[in-house]
Amino acid sequence: MSNQAPHPALLIPGPIEFDDAVLQSMSRYSESHVGQPFVNTFGETLSMLRKLFQTENPVSQPFIISGSGTLGWDQVAANLTEPGDDALVLHTGYFADSFADCFETYGVKATQLKAPIGDRPQLDEIEKALKEKKYKVITVTHTDTSTGVLSEIEPLSKLVRKVSPETLLIVDGVCSVGGEEIRFDDWDIDVVLTASQKAIGCPAGLSIIMASGRAIEAFKSRKTRPNSYFASWQNWLPIMQNYEAKKPSYFATPSPQLIHALHTALTQILSKPLSERFARHKEVSDKVKKAVADLGLKQLATKRENQANCMTAIYLPNDLKPPEILPNLLKKGVILAGGLHKEIATKYIRFGHMGVSVTDNKKDDIDRAIQALKDGLAEVGYKAPS
Amino acid sequence: MSNQAPHPALLIPGPIEFDDAVLQSMSRYSESHVGQPFVNTFGETLSMLRKLFQTENPVSQPFIISGSGTLGWDQVAANLTEPGDDALVLHTGYFADSFADCFETYGVKATQLKAPIGDRPQLDEIEKALKEKKYKVITVTHTDTSTGVLSEIEPLSKLVRKVSPETLLIVDGVCSVGGEEIRFDDWDIDVVLTASQKAIGCPAGLSIIMASGRAIEAFKSRKTRPNSYFASWQNWLPIMQNYEAKKPSYFATPSPQLIHALHTALTQILSKPLSERFARHKEVSDKVKKAVADLGLKQLATKRENQANCMTAIYLPNDLKPPEILPNLLKKGVILAGGLHKEIATKYIRFGHMGVSVTDNKKDDIDRAIQALKDGLAEVGYKAPS
Repeated sequence: MSNQAPHPALLIPGPIEFDDAVLQSMSRYSESHVGQPFVNTFGETLSMLRKLFQTENPVSQPFIISGSGTLGWDQVAANLTEPGDDALVLHTGYFADSFADCFETYGVKATQLKAPIGDRPQLDEIEKALKEKKYKVITVTHTDTSTGVLSEIEPLSKLVRKVSPETLLIVDGVCSVGGEEIRFDDWDIDVVLTASQKAIGCPAGLSIIMASGRAIEAFKSRKTRPNSYFASWQNWLPIMQNYEAKKPSYFATPSPQLIHALHTALTQILSKPLSERFARHKEVSDKVKKAVADLGLKQLATKRENQANCMTAIYLPNDLKPPEILPNLLKKGVILAGGLHKEIATKYIRFGHMGVSVTDNKKDDIDRAIQALKDGLAEVGYKAPS
Repeated sequence: MSNQAPHPALLIPGPIEFDDAVLQSMSRYSESHVGQPFVNTFGETLSMLRKLFQTENPVSQPFIISGSGTLGWDQVAANLTEPGDDALVLHTGYFADSFADCFETYGVKATQLKAPIGDRPQLDEIEKALKEKKYKVITVTHTDTSTGVLSEIEPLSKLVRKVSPETLLIVDGVCSVGGEEIRFDDWDIDVVLTASQKAIGCPAGLSIIMASGRAIEAFKSRKTRPNSYFASWQNWLPIMQNYEAKKPSYFATPSPQLIHALHTALTQILSKPLSERFARHKEVSDKVKKAVADLGLKQLATKRENQANCMTAIYLPNDLKPPEILPNLLKKGVILAGGLHKEIATKYIRFGHMGVSVTDNKKDDIDRAIQALKDGLAEVGYKAPS
């Protein structure tokens, strides 16, 4: 049984349901941010991130900074690009538009390579784009939370290394890290940025990054100083290195409670083989997607290989709008999310399936949500194919 | 009795000890950041900030963003100044150097007006500086956490309005808001920036700001776009206004748990007259400062009127260094902080006295800390004057 007060199951693409022990860590008594007990906890948390990202290269550098996942974009734009640089932004939904806007804020020209809604840019198009211009960075949204489209990282990395080896490969893993496999070293990635509140399973409030040695070298060899203060690696890099070496260090006060919660979440994740965790997310994703198909509903993402395993974006039938079905689901004890992609926001809903709702056998959140969706649609007169 | 596990009393100038109910709110079950229950909580929290800052002017604008207090500097520099502008930074310690560095990051020329350690710039010096050049902003650290020096806000504001009425008055209230009186309207302040983990009494992880109508107008009339993405009011202003109007809205995911904890902390603070709270902080500060004087010790801040009420920075006697006394205090169950001002960091310690350790009559943290300091100094051979 959970210690949490009764509440509807939160099955949106983040924040997700959290484990009791993680939430308990959130209410830990106050500790000094430069005292040895907390410094040890922060250091261990950074080291555990290396395992989560499957990197054993000692020059890989983890960062954990108070902020939303969005702060990861600022970190990339302010530290790895300089005004006048070019960024190639692969577009699979809302979050590419925003990342591009972030680059423009920092004086970086963002060129978007867009796919039709539900699809992702193809490798040959990306190759063509990379050959046209020297891009400082290429960005890809691993799972775009607005569309549920999954991008493939390994083939993309191979292409970048072949065509434009100095271009830094930036993966927005906000809605994938902890649920989709990411092999940081093997796939030769330069930055994965993410947030705490999705498949990692820790409450929101932390911007989490893993940067490659190549990224850190690119940062160190920039000609201008980073053009953000709070997001500057010039300020944070020594702090993160000191924390991981268990040495007290100060730039800005971190959140001990959130770091403790992340420590608990990562300890839980790493207590079992990561491969099992990813397989389980895929298995549950398959189940949700089959239920959606059985209901005669279509997903935004057109093919199984570009469908995310942490969430499913589902077109509503019969011109139904999200406000006509979501409150009904809430009455049945489950919360799904409305649409987010600007062009079609009123036409679809999003179902998040990651973290404890997927991995904890004692939880029946997913089955309840599938049943609620079936019943809820039937109640508004939708007839599923028999 | 507290529900918290036994732990040493944290009496550094932030983070501070937190109330049980506040910590309990940190472990609240997961909620959607755009669901009505959380939107209501966020909206109420923003409205409560108006009361804490004593502003009834409807054009005053509160902001709560995931991040450290430091993010408040980026918000000021990125939204209220433009590259090439001038900022006058009143210097009473470490945090002015850092705020100036933040301005420089954004292309703003920061001119520092420095006082000797333990003192603050005088009004006639400030008047002279303001007359020499047109400053877009003037910044003052209300309490500099590195020195315990308190700056006076009301006379400064009157001076600014007289000499350079268009200059925006920016108050860094990280170590003062919730413990020192701030009358936002009456004192005609443009921005107070603070963080959650000090006298407000909520765990770290939130950057909190109150901006005046004049500041918002200055922001809206800037010629260039804000040169940060995550700290941009262009992104956050509509979100904050929507939340306070109880309308769901999305730019970046806030931390529902931290917002709940802040809601609880502010509800507690506002359940009694603010004047009582500030008087209590002054009373306890007087007690600590008398104990320090009785021990024959000197403070960094030279006169009572420039000594903060939320903390006391104390020179160690007999060439003692912080690592020679702080571990001893920890054994006695209290945590004080070492020095932070670069030039004299090894010569002094800092004692934070704010929040529940001061306001909760059932807590004896302050008395225990004073006793521990007496006993600890005696144990290393220091003889207090009799």
